[in-house]
Amino acid sequence: MNEVLIKEKLKQFYLEDVGHQDVATMSIFTKKEPAKAYFYAKEAGVIAGISVIKYMYHMIDPSIRVTLKKQDGQSIKKQETIAEVTGPIHSILVGERVILNLIQRMSGIATTTNHAVQKLNDPTIKICDTRKTTPGLRIFEKYAVSCGGGWNHRNGLYDGAMIKDNHIVAAGSIKNAVQKVREQVGPMIKIEVETETKEQVMEAVDAKCDIIMFDNRTPSEIQQLLPLVPKHIYTEASGGITLDTINEFQHVGVDFISLGFLTHSVKALDISVMIEGGY
Amino acid sequence: MNEVLIKEKLKQFYLEDVGHQDVATMSIFTKKEPAKAYFYAKEAGVIAGISVIKYMYHMIDPSIRVTLKKQDGQSIKKQETIAEVTGPIHSILVGERVILNLIQRMSGIATTTNHAVQKLNDPTIKICDTRKTTPGLRIFEKYAVSCGGGWNHRNGLYDGAMIKDNHIVAAGSIKNAVQKVREQVGPMIKIEVETETKEQVMEAVDAKCDIIMFDNRTPSEIQQLLPLVPKHIYTEASGGITLDTINEFQHVGVDFISLGFLTHSVKALDISVMIEGGY
Amino acid sequence: MNEVLIKEKLKQFYLEDVGHQDVATMSIFTKKEPAKAYFYAKEAGVIAGISVIKYMYHMIDPSIRVTLKKQDGQSIKKQETIAEVTGPIHSILVGERVILNLIQRMSGIATTTNHAVQKLNDPTIKICDTRKTTPGLRIFEKYAVSCGGGWNHRNGLYDGAMIKDNHIVAAGSIKNAVQKVREQVGPMIKIEVETETKEQVMEAVDAKCDIIMFDNRTPSEIQQLLPLVPKHIYTEASGGITLDTINEFQHVGVDFISLGFLTHSVKALDISVMIEGGY
Amino acid sequence: MNEVLIKEKLKQFYLEDVGHQDVATMSIFTKKEPAKAYFYAKEAGVIAGISVIKYMYHMIDPSIRVTLKKQDGQSIKKQETIAEVTGPIHSILVGERVILNLIQRMSGIATTTNHAVQKLNDPTIKICDTRKTTPGLRIFEKYAVSCGGGWNHRNGLYDGAMIKDNHIVAAGSIKNAVQKVREQVGPMIKIEVETETKEQVMEAVDAKCDIIMFDNRTPSEIQQLLPLVPKHIYTEASGGITLDTINEFQHVGVDFISLGFLTHSVKALDISVMIEGGY
Amino acid sequence: MNEVLIKEKLKQFYLEDVGHQDVATMSIFTKKEPAKAYFYAKEAGVIAGISVIKYMYHMIDPSIRVTLKKQDGQSIKKQETIAEVTGPIHSILVGERVILNLIQRMSGIATTTNHAVQKLNDPTIKICDTRKTTPGLRIFEKYAVSCGGGWNHRNGLYDGAMIKDNHIVAAGSIKNAVQKVREQVGPMIKIEVETETKEQVMEAVDAKCDIIMFDNRTPSEIQQLLPLVPKHIYTEASGGITLDTINEFQHVGVDFISLGFLTHSVKALDISVMIEGGY
Amino acid sequence: MNEVLIKEKLKQFYLEDVGHQDVATMSIFTKKEPAKAYFYAKEAGVIAGISVIKYMYHMIDPSIRVTLKKQDGQSIKKQETIAEVTGPIHSILVGERVILNLIQRMSGIATTTNHAVQKLNDPTIKICDTRKTTPGLRIFEKYAVSCGGGWNHRNGLYDGAMIKDNHIVAAGSIKNAVQKVREQVGPMIKIEVETETKEQVMEAVDAKCDIIMFDNRTPSEIQQLLPLVPKHIYTEASGGITLDTINEFQHVGVDFISLGFLTHSVKALDISVMIEGGY
Repeated sequence: MNEVLIKEKLKQFYLEDVGHQDVATMSIFTKKEPAKAYFYAKEAGVIAGISVIKYMYHMIDPSIRVTLKKQDGQSIKKQETIAEVTGPIHSILVGERVILNLIQRMSGIATTTNHAVQKLNDPTIKICDTRKTTPGLRIFEKYAVSCGGGWNHRNGLYDGAMIKDNHIVAAGSIKNAVQKVREQVGPMIKIEVETETKEQVMEAVDAKCDIIMFDNRTPSEIQQLLPLVPKHIYTEASGGITLDTINEFQHVGVDFISLGFLTHSVKALDISVMIEGGY
Repeated sequence: MNEVLIKEKLKQFYLEDVGHQDVATMSIFTKKEPAKAYFYAKEAGVIAGISVIKYMYHMIDPSIRVTLKKQDGQSIKKQETIAEVTGPIHSILVGERVILNLIQRMSGIATTTNHAVQKLNDPTIKICDTRKTTPGLRIFEKYAVSCGGGWNHRNGLYDGAMIKDNHIVAAGSIKNAVQKVREQVGPMIKIEVETETKEQVMEAVDAKCDIIMFDNRTPSEIQQLLPLVPKHIYTEASGGITLDTINEFQHVGVDFISLGFLTHSVKALDISVMIEGGY
Repeated sequence: MNEVLIKEKLKQFYLEDVGHQDVATMSIFTKKEPAKAYFYAKEAGVIAGISVIKYMYHMIDPSIRVTLKKQDGQSIKKQETIAEVTGPIHSILVGERVILNLIQRMSGIATTTNHAVQKLNDPTIKICDTRKTTPGLRIFEKYAVSCGGGWNHRNGLYDGAMIKDNHIVAAGSIKNAVQKVREQVGPMIKIEVETETKEQVMEAVDAKCDIIMFDNRTPSEIQQLLPLVPKHIYTEASGGITLDTINEFQHVGVDFISLGFLTHSVKALDISVMIEGGY
Repeated sequence: MNEVLIKEKLKQFYLEDVGHQDVATMSIFTKKEPAKAYFYAKEAGVIAGISVIKYMYHMIDPSIRVTLKKQDGQSIKKQETIAEVTGPIHSILVGERVILNLIQRMSGIATTTNHAVQKLNDPTIKICDTRKTTPGLRIFEKYAVSCGGGWNHRNGLYDGAMIKDNHIVAAGSIKNAVQKVREQVGPMIKIEVETETKEQVMEAVDAKCDIIMFDNRTPSEIQQLLPLVPKHIYTEASGGITLDTINEFQHVGVDFISLGFLTHSVKALDISVMIEGGY
Repeated sequence: MNEVLIKEKLKQFYLEDVGHQDVATMSIFTKKEPAKAYFYAKEAGVIAGISVIKYMYHMIDPSIRVTLKKQDGQSIKKQETIAEVTGPIHSILVGERVILNLIQRMSGIATTTNHAVQKLNDPTIKICDTRKTTPGLRIFEKYAVSCGGGWNHRNGLYDGAMIKDNHIVAAGSIKNAVQKVREQVGPMIKIEVETETKEQVMEAVDAKCDIIMFDNRTPSEIQQLLPLVPKHIYTEASGGITLDTINEFQHVGVDFISLGFLTHSVKALDISVMIEGGY
Repeated sequence: MNEVLIKEKLKQFYLEDVGHQDVATMSIFTKKEPAKAYFYAKEAGVIAGISVIKYMYHMIDPSIRVTLKKQDGQSIKKQETIAEVTGPIHSILVGERVILNLIQRMSGIATTTNHAVQKLNDPTIKICDTRKTTPGLRIFEKYAVSCGGGWNHRNGLYDGAMIKDNHIVAAGSIKNAVQKVREQVGPMIKIEVETETKEQVMEAVDAKCDIIMFDNRTPSEIQQLLPLVPKHIYTEASGGITLDTINEFQHVGVDFISLGFLTHSVKALDISVMIEGGY
C-alpha cells in the first residue's frame, strides 16, 4: 500500500471518530500518564493491516512507540499479541477504536480469503477479489485479500476493461467491442470478456482479448470450454460461488476464481486492546 | 443525513472507482445512447440509503432522471424495484457499481437491525449501534441502523462521554470521573458509565451520570440492578449479545441494547441493476 | 483540542497569509540567520491557545525551538512573556502574524469569559458559550471559552437538540417535539427546550427533556420558575445578558448562563512579538 | 469576492456547524413544509456580505428562493429587511445560524469602517485595513472593509512587501533592503517602508520605494515629514489610532490611515431571522 | 476524461489564477455587461480539450452559454473558430487565461502527436506516450495524446508493471521478476519487460510477459528480434526517437513506439480569444 | 517558494503517479535493500527546483538521505551531479519519475530564461514571465524563471491590475479605468496599462498608473515613446518577442521585457538518475 495515501486516509478516519476532541479522555487524563497496551487476537485468523497501528499512532503522538509482533498475512492464534504500544495513555485511548475498526475488517477479509484458498485446495487456481468493496476502503480491502493469499482483480474502472453484455450489444459483437476498447485505451490495459456460451468463448479468443470469464458456468461446463482457450489467455470462473461450493472447482483448470463476498460481506476478526500501567 | 456532506463523500467514492475514466464504457458508448435501468432487490430485506442513487447520478450527469419507488426503512420483497433511472447508458453504467456497493451495505445493516428488533420483540427496548463502524462510513452506517428501526449511540468521541475502567482508575472513583468530565465538557454532553458490579451502579447513580451501562451482565443480573437506577437515567445492556441470544433480554427493562455486529460484520443485501434499451 | 485537526486548520491559515511566499522576508534573509523572539502580553488578561505557537512553527520549520512560559487559562500581566522562540529569523517572521491573529482572538475570548465569571461571582452558576462563533474557528473559540473558566454549550446542530418555537408549533406541543427528537436521535443526545412561560416549563418537565432554558426571563421570574424543575434537569438563563447585567443573576439558581457576545463580538487581547539577534 | 472560492469556504463553514445532521430539525420537520423567512437588522449599520445568504441556501437546497432587498455597502435602519427567503423550513433553519455568524461579523466590520470614515471626515484620506484579520476569513473581512468605504492594504505576505526594522537591520540600510526586494520580486509588487525618523523617510524616498508609512507619528510630525515625499509615493499613517483619535488626522495629508481594530476586534451587527408560515 | 475529476482540477486551476478576485475586471465591470467571445486558432493544428471551455465557464457563471464549433481531435486551420461564448463580459474575462493555458497545451500535444503519426506514416504502428507528463496534468495530457491519434501507455506506477534493469538484477532473472510481479499484482495488470539483448528478449518471451520493449534498438536490430516474439505479446520501440528519426521505424513491425517529448517538451498551440460587444 | 504549499503540491503529484502502489517495485523489492542514486544532467543548462528532491523523498521515506550538490540558479555541465540520494532502493525508485518530471521542466524554464538574458545582453533590462503558465504549476514555474535570472510579473489576477482594451472601452478612458481600479483595490496593488499609441501612453502617464506596457511596438517606436514616461513609472515591452528577435531590444531603455514562451512552450532539460548498489 502507498504509505502517503494511507496516511491521508487514516487522518480522515481519525477526524471522523474524534471530531474536536475525545471528551472523556481529555477530561480525565493529562497528556502524560504512561501506559503499555497490547493489541491481541480474541480469535484465530489471518491478520492484515497492522502497520495501521504504527501510522495512526505516529500521527496522533510521535512519542508513542509501536512494536509489531506479527507480519501481515501471518496466521495468528487466539490470545496472541499483534503489537505492543508504549506511550501516554491519553494518546493510546483516543486512537484505539478507529485502528481496531480498520484492522478487524482487514483481518476478517484476509481470514475469509484464506478459508477460500484452503477450501479450494488447488494451488494452480487463485482466489480473486472484485470491485464489490466498501466505498473509500478499496486500497485496504484489496491489500487484505492479498494478505489472505488471494489475487487482486482490477482496482477500478480505469485499470482494466471488462466487456459485458451491454457492451457487446452496443458494439455489435465481441470482436468489435474488444477492438474499440483496444484502440481507445492503448496496450497496457487488459481486456476481459464475460462469456456465457461456447460461441462467445470462441469469439473472445478470436478477438484477442486478454482474459475470458466463464460467467455462472458449472465446473463441468468450464472444463468443456477450456480447451478452446489458448494458454496465454487467462481464464476466470465467476458468479455465485460460495465457501460451500468452491471445492467443486478444484482442478477445474481456470487461472482464478473471483468471489464478491470476500469484501461485500465481511465478518470482522475479533481483535482487542489490553492496557497496563495502573489503569 | 446532511446532504452537503454526503455529496462530498460520494464524490470521493466515485473517484476511487472511476479514476481517470471507465476505459471500457467510454470506448464503446458515446455519451448519448439512452437507456432505462432498474435497481431492484434480489432478496427480501429493509432498504436504506437509496437517495444515494439520486445524488450520485446527479453528480455524474444531470441529464439522468431518477425515480425512487421506495423509501428508506421500508421492507422490500425479492424482485421489487427500488428505483428507475433514465438517461445515457454511459452515465448509468459508470456509476452503477459504486452506488450498489453503498446501498447494499446500508440495506444489509438496516435488515440486520430489523432482525434484531424482531427477535427482541419488545418495543420498550431499543436496539442501538456502537462506534464499531467502517472508517469513513459512519454517517451512512448509523443512518442505516436508524432505517432498520434502531437507535444511534454517540457518533464519535466528541458527542458523548463513556466512562470506562481506565477512566475510573485514573480518576480515583466513578464520582470523580463523572465530575471531571462534566466540569470540562459542559452541560450538553451526556455521560455514560460502564458498570460491572452493584457497587459501581450505585456509585454511578450517586455521581449523577446520564446513562448506566450494564456490561456483560445476564438478563437476571440486570433485573436485580435496575431498581437501583432512577427513571431519568437511561440504562443500556451491552457485551456479547447476538441475534441468537437477544430474545433473552425481552422484558428485561433496560432502555436499549447495543450491538457491535450491526456494523462491524455486515452482510450486504443483494441488490442489482437491470438495464433496458436495446442493450 | 484535537491536535490533528488543529494542525490541518493551521496549515490553511498559514497558506492564506503567506501564499506562494513572503516576498519581503525571502528577499532579505537567507534561511539561516538565527534569532530569538519573545511572545509577550501588552495588556493583562487570560491567555488561551498558546500551543498554536508550537504547532505552527513546527510546521513552518522543525528547526525552531519553542518554549512555552505559561499555560492556557493562566492570568498574565502586562509585559509578561508567553513563549520564547529560537530559530532562523526568516521562519520566525513568516509565521508571526498568523499566530498572533489566532492567539490574540482566543485570549480575548478567554479574558472576556473570565470577566463574566468574575462579575457574576457565583461559582454554582457556569458561564456558557453559544453557536454564535466565527465560521471555521469554532474549535478554537469554544476552547478559549473553557480557558476563561466557561462551559461549552453544544458544538453544533449535531451534538445537542434545541427545541425552539418553530419546532414546538410544528410538532404540536413540547411533548411531541421532545418525543420525536428522542425517537430519532437516540439516547446520547441531550434535548433542551426553550421556554417563555410557566406552562411551557411545566410541559418541558413533563416531556422529560434534559435541559430547560429560560429565554429572556428576569432573575426574579427565573426564581419563581425554578421550583417546577426537578434537580436532574439542567437549567439555563439566556437572552440579552451583558457584562453590565450579569451580576443581577448572582444566586438566581440556574446551572448556567449563556452569552453570545463571548464569541460574536471579540476584543483581541494585545499580544506582540519582540525579536532579538542583531536585528 | 471570487464566488468559486467563497462557495468552497461556505461549504466548510456549513459542515462545521451541521456535522452529520441537524438533530432537532430533521426529527420534527420533513423536508417539505414551506415557510417564508426575513433576514432583518435589529440595529442600524452598514451591511456587507449578504450574497452569502444566496450562496449558502443554494448549496443547502436549490429549491429555496432568496430575494436580496439591499446591497452590500448600504446603510440600513433598525428593523429593515435585508433579504426574503422562501422554501422548506427545514432547509431555512439548518443554514440560518452559520449565515448570521458570517454576515453579522462582516456587517460589523463595514459599520465600524464607516464610523472611522465619518469621524475622520476627510475624503482625501482613505481608511485602510491590515493583516490583523481572523484566520480563514481574510477574503470576507477585507471585502467588508471595502463595503464600509475603506481601502484594502495587502492581502498577505505575497502581494506586497513591507520593509520593517528587522529587514532594514539585516539588509544594512533601507536602500539595500528596497533593492534586494525589488530584484527578487519583480516590478508588480509594491514596496512599503516603515519609517520612524526624518532620516528614514529621506532614505526611503531615495530608495524609490512605493509607499512610506509613518509609524506611530503624531499628526504634526507627519505634516513636517510629508514635504519630503514626492507625489507619486503613497503615504500611510499607522499605529495606535482609534475611533477616538482619528479625527486628529483630518487634513493631515497622507493618502491613507490603517486601523488594525477594524478586523481584530469586531463587534457583530445584530441581524436576525423571522420565520413565517404557521410556525 | 472523468468529468467529475476534471471539474475538481479546473476549480483548483481557477483558484490559482484568480485568488480572492480579479482586481482589474471587478473594478471596471459590473457582473452584467453582455458580450460575445470567440476562441479561435492563431495557427493550424489539432485541437484537444475544448470541453474545458464549457466546464470552466459553467463553474464560474452558469449564465454563460458556450457553443463548441469543433470536436477534440479535429484538425483546425488558422483563424478558425473553436467555440463561441455568450454571457457577462466580467465572467468571460476572468476565466479566459486559465482556459487558454490548458487548451493551448493540450492542443500542442495533440498537434505534435499528430505530426509523429504523419511522419511515421505506418498505420500498423501506434504512437504512444510515457509517464513523462507534467505533474498534476497527466489526465489532460494523456487525453491530448489520444486526440492526436496516439495511444496511452500506463497511467502511472499502479496500472502497469515495467520490469527494468534494477528489477531484473534484484530478482535474479527476468523470469523471476515477471513471476514475482504476477504473483503479487494479479491477472489484470500487464507486465512489460525492457530488453537490450537477444537473450533478454528470449527470456522475456519465456517468462510470459505481456509486452516487450526494445530499448534503444535500431530499426534493423528490432527487425532481427521480432521473429522471436509470439504474436500475442505486444512489442514497443523506445529510446531517443525524435520527429526527425521516427520515419526510419516505418514498417519495422512493432506494435507501438513511445515518445517522451510528446508531453515533456510541449510547444503550445496558439489559440486566442476575441471579444465583441462594444468592448 | 513557500515550503508548506510546495509539500502539499508534491503530495498530490506523487499520488497521481503512484496511485495505490508501484506494482512492479513493491513486488520485487522489500523496503530495505540499500542503494545510492545520483541525479545528474545529461545536457548543460541552468538548474532549478532541486529542493524538490529533498522534499519529495522526505515525504516518501524519512530514512532517505539527500545531499544537494548544486544550488538553484547555477549553471551545470553535461554529466554533472545535482544530488546524491542514499536509502532503500524501493523508495528511491517510486519517487524518481515524478521528481524528474518536475525538475526537468523547471530547469528547462530556467535555462531558456537564461538564454533570453544572454541574448538580450543588457543588464538594465529584465526578462519577465507572464501568466501563461501551466495550470497548477505557477509557483514552480515563476520560481524557475527567477532561477534563470528573470523577473516575475504578477502571480495572478489578484496581485496586479492590467488595464487592457476591454477595460478602457468599458471605463470610457484610461484615466477612468485607472481611477476605478485604484478606488477599488487600494494602495498596494500596482496598475499597469497596455498602450498601443502615443496618445495612450500620455493618458496612462496622466492617469498615474504604475507601469506602462508598450504592446507590440518595435524598438524604435519604444525609444520614441519612452521620453514621455517619468522615471518612477516602470515600462514594459511585450508582444511576439522571441529568442531570435530579443537582441533588437538591447539598450531600448524599458525596464523589462515579458516573454510568454518561457512557460507556455517549455523544452525539458534532460536530467536523469543513475542507481548504484548491486542493481
